[in-house]
Amino acid sequence: MNPEPVLQLDRVIHEKARLAIVSALSAAPSLSYTDLRNLLGMTDGNLTSHLRILQEAGLVSLSKSTGEARPQTQCVLSDAGRSAFTEYLGQLEQIVSRFRKNPPSP
Amino acid sequence: MNPEPVLQLDRVIHEKARLAIVSALSAAPSLSYTDLRNLLGMTDGNLTSHLRILQEAGLVSLSKSTGEARPQTQCVLSDAGRSAFTEYLGQLEQIVSRFRKNPPSP
Repeated sequence: MNPEPVLQLDRVIHEKARLAIVSALSAAPSLSYTDLRNLLGMTDGNLTSHLRILQEAGLVSLSKSTGEARPQTQCVLSDAGRSAFTEYLGQLEQIVSRFRKNPPSP
Repeated sequence: MNPEPVLQLDRVIHEKARLAIVSALSAAPSLSYTDLRNLLGMTDGNLTSHLRILQEAGLVSLSKSTGEARPQTQCVLSDAGRSAFTEYLGQLEQIVSRFRKNPPSP
């Protein structure tokens, strides 16, 4: 298989933990930090570090919810994040479809 | 989107550089180290390091070709590597198909 479509994958989204975060956020208007951590089974250090990379790339925005006894960090996939994720999934589809045409054979 | 299929992706193959290596090797009986490096535009250090990880996981085998003026390292996707790549592509297909059912929307 020509590796070209693989080389074009966005490294920020492709990394497994970040792909899991973006996938989870794509399905909800927002998720609290705690819900996200529990859903993905990630450590605080790991989740915080990957959220920071996604935030710096403009793909995720974080905000403190107020009006509750304990303020929570809310995580939202930004418009740019939704676009980037849609584009990424299109690239995966292209990779899978090339494979269907040229399956790896011995 | 449920992040479950993402969490099941094999980290050894999913990493972008290794995915590119495996994709390239899946299309050929073997590739020389030099051809692989030129095809993927990787540095020696980067390619050597990722090939070592793939070799240690049993997905790629390396051998020295003989009988030439300058012996070359030949890289081959092992049977286990072909199986793992086929399985990985099936997982990508599952992720894309879940997305088709629940596209990320604002």
